Amino acid sequence: MKQHDVTMLGTGLIGDFYTMTLHGQRGRDRVRVVYSRSAGRGEAFRTRHGVLESTTDMQAAIRHPETDVVVVALPNFLHEEAVSAVAEAGKAVLVTKPLGRDAAEARRMLDAVEKAGVFGGYLEDLVYTPKSLKSMKAIQDGAIGDVTWVRARETHPGPHSAWFWDHRLTGGGAIVDLGCHCIEIARCFVGKDNRPVEVMCYTDTLVHPIEAEDNAIALVRFESGAIGQFEVSWTFRGGMDLRDEVAGTHGTIWVNHFLRTGLEMFTAGAGEGGYVAEKAETSAGWLFPVGDEVSELGYTDMFTDMFDALDEGRQPMETLYDGYVVNAIMDACYRSAESRAWEPVELEWRGGMRPRISKSPETHEGQVVIKRERLPDGRHKLILKDPASGDFSDRII
Amino acid sequence: MKQHDVTMLGTGLIGDFYTMTLHGQRGRDRVRVVYSRSAGRGEAFRTRHGVLESTTDMQAAIRHPETDVVVVALPNFLHEEAVSAVAEAGKAVLVTKPLGRDAAEARRMLDAVEKAGVFGGYLEDLVYTPKSLKSMKAIQDGAIGDVTWVRARETHPGPHSAWFWDHRLTGGGAIVDLGCHCIEIARCFVGKDNRPVEVMCYTDTLVHPIEAEDNAIALVRFESGAIGQFEVSWTFRGGMDLRDEVAGTHGTIWVNHFLRTGLEMFTAGAGEGGYVAEKAETSAGWLFPVGDEVSELGYTDMFTDMFDALDEGRQPMETLYDGYVVNAIMDACYRSAESRAWEPVELEWRGGMRPRISKSPETHEGQVVIKRERLPDGRHKLILKDPASGDFSDRII
Amino acid sequence: MKQHDVTMLGTGLIGDFYTMTLHGQRGRDRVRVVYSRSAGRGEAFRTRHGVLESTTDMQAAIRHPETDVVVVALPNFLHEEAVSAVAEAGKAVLVTKPLGRDAAEARRMLDAVEKAGVFGGYLEDLVYTPKSLKSMKAIQDGAIGDVTWVRARETHPGPHSAWFWDHRLTGGGAIVDLGCHCIEIARCFVGKDNRPVEVMCYTDTLVHPIEAEDNAIALVRFESGAIGQFEVSWTFRGGMDLRDEVAGTHGTIWVNHFLRTGLEMFTAGAGEGGYVAEKAETSAGWLFPVGDEVSELGYTDMFTDMFDALDEGRQPMETLYDGYVVNAIMDACYRSAESRAWEPVELEWRGGMRPRISKSPETHEGQVVIKRERLPDGRHKLILKDPASGDFSDRII
Amino acid sequence: MKQHDVTMLGTGLIGDFYTMTLHGQRGRDRVRVVYSRSAGRGEAFRTRHGVLESTTDMQAAIRHPETDVVVVALPNFLHEEAVSAVAEAGKAVLVTKPLGRDAAEARRMLDAVEKAGVFGGYLEDLVYTPKSLKSMKAIQDGAIGDVTWVRARETHPGPHSAWFWDHRLTGGGAIVDLGCHCIEIARCFVGKDNRPVEVMCYTDTLVHPIEAEDNAIALVRFESGAIGQFEVSWTFRGGMDLRDEVAGTHGTIWVNHFLRTGLEMFTAGAGEGGYVAEKAETSAGWLFPVGDEVSELGYTDMFTDMFDALDEGRQPMETLYDGYVVNAIMDACYRSAESRAWEPVELEWRGGMRPRISKSPETHEGQVVIKRERLPDGRHKLILKDPASGDFSDRII
Repeated sequence: MKQHDVTMLGTGLIGDFYTMTLHGQRGRDRVRVVYSRSAGRGEAFRTRHGVLESTTDMQAAIRHPETDVVVVALPNFLHEEAVSAVAEAGKAVLVTKPLGRDAAEARRMLDAVEKAGVFGGYLEDLVYTPKSLKSMKAIQDGAIGDVTWVRARETHPGPHSAWFWDHRLTGGGAIVDLGCHCIEIARCFVGKDNRPVEVMCYTDTLVHPIEAEDNAIALVRFESGAIGQFEVSWTFRGGMDLRDEVAGTHGTIWVNHFLRTGLEMFTAGAGEGGYVAEKAETSAGWLFPVGDEVSELGYTDMFTDMFDALDEGRQPMETLYDGYVVNAIMDACYRSAESRAWEPVELEWRGGMRPRISKSPETHEGQVVIKRERLPDGRHKLILKDPASGDFSDRII
Repeated sequence: MKQHDVTMLGTGLIGDFYTMTLHGQRGRDRVRVVYSRSAGRGEAFRTRHGVLESTTDMQAAIRHPETDVVVVALPNFLHEEAVSAVAEAGKAVLVTKPLGRDAAEARRMLDAVEKAGVFGGYLEDLVYTPKSLKSMKAIQDGAIGDVTWVRARETHPGPHSAWFWDHRLTGGGAIVDLGCHCIEIARCFVGKDNRPVEVMCYTDTLVHPIEAEDNAIALVRFESGAIGQFEVSWTFRGGMDLRDEVAGTHGTIWVNHFLRTGLEMFTAGAGEGGYVAEKAETSAGWLFPVGDEVSELGYTDMFTDMFDALDEGRQPMETLYDGYVVNAIMDACYRSAESRAWEPVELEWRGGMRPRISKSPETHEGQVVIKRERLPDGRHKLILKDPASGDFSDRII
Repeated sequence: MKQHDVTMLGTGLIGDFYTMTLHGQRGRDRVRVVYSRSAGRGEAFRTRHGVLESTTDMQAAIRHPETDVVVVALPNFLHEEAVSAVAEAGKAVLVTKPLGRDAAEARRMLDAVEKAGVFGGYLEDLVYTPKSLKSMKAIQDGAIGDVTWVRARETHPGPHSAWFWDHRLTGGGAIVDLGCHCIEIARCFVGKDNRPVEVMCYTDTLVHPIEAEDNAIALVRFESGAIGQFEVSWTFRGGMDLRDEVAGTHGTIWVNHFLRTGLEMFTAGAGEGGYVAEKAETSAGWLFPVGDEVSELGYTDMFTDMFDALDEGRQPMETLYDGYVVNAIMDACYRSAESRAWEPVELEWRGGMRPRISKSPETHEGQVVIKRERLPDGRHKLILKDPASGDFSDRII
Repeated sequence: MKQHDVTMLGTGLIGDFYTMTLHGQRGRDRVRVVYSRSAGRGEAFRTRHGVLESTTDMQAAIRHPETDVVVVALPNFLHEEAVSAVAEAGKAVLVTKPLGRDAAEARRMLDAVEKAGVFGGYLEDLVYTPKSLKSMKAIQDGAIGDVTWVRARETHPGPHSAWFWDHRLTGGGAIVDLGCHCIEIARCFVGKDNRPVEVMCYTDTLVHPIEAEDNAIALVRFESGAIGQFEVSWTFRGGMDLRDEVAGTHGTIWVNHFLRTGLEMFTAGAGEGGYVAEKAETSAGWLFPVGDEVSELGYTDMFTDMFDALDEGRQPMETLYDGYVVNAIMDACYRSAESRAWEPVELEWRGGMRPRISKSPETHEGQVVIKRERLPDGRHKLILKDPASGDFSDRII
């Protein structure tokens, strides 16, 4: 039973979530040292999570003699520097989302890690939520047939730290912050071997006085014909809306990760209120907390996969290559928003080929069956198409 | 208390729904004569609904001496002929959706009715659902601020009559069948005086062996910057999904018209099953019927508005001009799907001008307030933007 | 097409709802005259609803020459006086719930009406909600097998008018106010010919400084063995919770009439707010309005049945006898709460006999099949009971 | 970082769930040896979970030299024998629910463990679900004021193993199987120091041909006046319904643990289906799986608390004394069902005293304020009670 000691780079909200996950339940892995630019924030984090050491020296944290895994939980513009340093130090590196500010940056990180031959993992938590994993399993078992359309939604009233709002530091706005999740969710549902071919994207800055987009929608067309549609917003009112929908030829999956998960609370506001949930907007009236955020948001299963993969000498479900693909798709989104047209996804494709979703219709007496409905009396109503004339007719059989 | 006698043209599902609505509850208006091409279907309809006469002569039905209102519940390709005849007959005409197969056809109908000076109503039921009406009222009262984005969804496994599937008879596929609802829903939420400027649309035929699209998504950009997004499908599995979502600067509205309305039933299938709901896919397992379909789908409030408007000498909420606007937007959708680019909406605009959604941010000591969060201890955390440098910072006050 | 002119007795919330229903949509029946003890309230009501006359003379209102139906929408303690006067006047009388303050009072009203030979209707709206009607139809069609248990819940933070709180004027607390609905709901689901045999009830006054109960639960045991369980409260926080659940041998029905019906709204509170829904507690945060309250609460279908029954010379679905049965059950509830034991329901029973819910188990090789489960591999797992020894065993077949 | 090696007694469904939990994620505790009466089932379990040894010798399993904790996951009638043996062996013992078949048996186990001075834990998972824990925290923070009423529901179509159905082996039917969960849930919400005073219970055997009850409802009255109401059934159709509701003087909590948790799937049944969820009834149509059952059902947090408590030398949240209290309440339930009256809960009470839920009403000019409503115009409507006359009146201020 192997166990890992971790260097945590970064003490923001995501560093907190990661460490709560690692130290939660009966886990055997531990954060050994934490790095922050700010000595005060580092110390506060150390105390908050029972970590042995904090430091303001990133290199020292990375090269700490007792850790074998480094988690990069820093703002986007610091990822490349950190990942390069970890690769040089020869340790396993797990990087928070998005991998880079653009595909070029992501690619350099991927190359550095692959060249160094170290383990790399992409910390995309939302494909690891228990509901996501169960849905993927159902799809693999054929429960909904071929996937035709994936809708992934992530919206909230805007991020909680200043740097998120500065597109120079992040690479963009709501797409880079939230769309990266949605894109990878769509890839997991349509199949990672299903090449993202082209993208149509629309962005606008509707509410906040910023340069980056605060609302966006995009369609990613995959080789099979399936569409990955994502909707992101920093102007949603009512909390954080995380929903995924998967349509298939034989079924449908609807996932609600956050605002409607079976826990509903009304409070007249007499109590202290306290923490309700990430990005909750109110502490009175009807509230919708989630039970265990680190589990529901996928952090638990994500780190399990990462460390198990490391122990077993296999790739994790989410690799740095996946992070690079996501960046390549986001780059195409921004190009499309600018050109107002479909833009190709430019990337080095390592997956295979996927055939088009097949249409192999049933026939009835030489006619194509368009639809079959069971009538209340047990008979069937067929809608038929004459292959020669293209005319349609009803038939009761 | 005025009362109307109605000529019903058409005996399909929509004619049934309309007549159930008119004859339902304690209504005072009645269908007096029904027209069908088929004498058998006409007679069956007459008996089913307790109507006095049926006929296979459309002109006779329209010119029936005892009716003052004609409802056109015919397939799309017969609308123009019927509307022209009613206009000539000098009677009030109510036309089911969509008005035409394209804007040119819709325009000719509009002109005919306006030239004849008769009352015209566009039977777009889904903007009249009790939930839609209540939502519009809340928006007018300022409950959600400025509307930024409307999402309207209508999906089901495909229509029940053969003619729907023949794009030559209808003008298109899922867009013409379902998108017309969504477009008008969006218009009602962003404001009918908010000009639809341009459209981006994607269509595909993913499952059914037909020429028309069985899946589509479109963005309609309105003059205020608000987006009307619609998603339609003839390949959805699980029943009929009718959902609208409205995002505003200060609030959010989520409407579910059909599959999740507070009535849930599990049946092991022992019973006769019977009619569950329009386009339900199964009659065992978990089922989600709606209480009163004609009320929940808006038919009741729609006819009330139509006949009240007629009695009061005012325009109804939905006019033939609205039908024409919808057709113009759908035309732009098909052009966009073809050109793969944004296409302008070409129409004679009778509405006014709408200013852009305003961004008038709060300031704090000369800095722009991007976001304000209340901390558990009662203090506020501000995210500020320096107007000179464009840099962002946090401040606790 | 017959039409009725109505005398409305009472101008409170329920009088408003009734009149909104009658005057709503394209209805043909009208309130002709309204009675209130207070001239001011009468006039306000007259203006609000476009009624021709108001009066403070109850007899004059009842005997108004142009009305043929009198609706009693008065506080409980005035029902008997009003009903007697209407019976004497020989007009149809429709009485709001509960019929009486106790069964004796209800019985006297029933006798007066039956002796006068006039039409009597019991205005129990909640069994007429579209969801209730659809559920009853499904049960009649056999969708859930034999009904075993009905749960009816009605809770809110307490009534809006002073007289409700005075048990001397009403006959009790939450049971008389809300339990009367629940009891009749249960009767409609288990079958009205299913005799209510005995009752166990618990009451407490947990929050409000009043004599009457502000919380209660009761079990009504019907002749078939089915249980009607009701839960009522004047101390619920969060709005008005109206839910019914019906368990059957082959299925389940869950009905939510009010707080979760598919309309969800978040408002930061910037707007005027306005009316959200009956007994809503807040006007900001997450709100759950209903679309059309008078339809969703059953008023529309209730008056349709009442007036149609009158026109057709038949009994309505809800008669004054039903009101009397409900009072008899509530009397047993109060006796049970006092005696802390099961109490018989004392009433003149006009229904028939109902056999016990049958248990006719499947057998397998001489053993009784307790349960049958389909295994993933297609085989069946049986749980069997040996009729001789009473021993249980598993068997895979 | 301490770690435990576990002896698992029993290889049924619950043993599987426990072991999946312990071996899941990155846990550091492991099952070292498993005991089953059946060598075949023991070996299958060993292989399935990667356990080192299986044995048919219970004593050998308990006294295994490398384990320090024994988990009793056996049928109810074997608990006492197993617990006594573990106590004698001087190891920590964790016992599945219910502790005993009755309070006397539970008491003997409690005594044995306390006399031996070993660590004892009661494996009541449902009070440890993430939603339950979050709800308890909110209540402790005052979010809903004083708890007035807890409703706990657990229903499904009946257990999956033969022994559950034999009341001689279990101690009863649905109450012993499911009610034990509900009772402890109620205790956690009303406060464990809140003495259960008396019980009213109703049971019936409505569907299955067995001696034990297949449906039951009970009210547990606690010293504060709060009611713990539980509803259990082995005849529910539609899956497994696990819901808890907590009403308080200032708020409300609704928890849905299983059938409506934000994961909804429709499948036309083309796929293999596979495992949907515990006690799911169908594998086609609309399905409602849960994401991660062992987390959502509380197993994860339960074992964390148990092992952490053991490591920290403290009592776990759920002790064997709690198991004994639950049995004492269930004994009172069966007595009440028999006597058809309230029955006292007979137990050795180790908790404290709880005052009655307080009613300290606001007053206004010498009158008691019964209710205060904010009117749309900003004024307040008060319902007042005159303390002298007991009369009620409205006042607008």
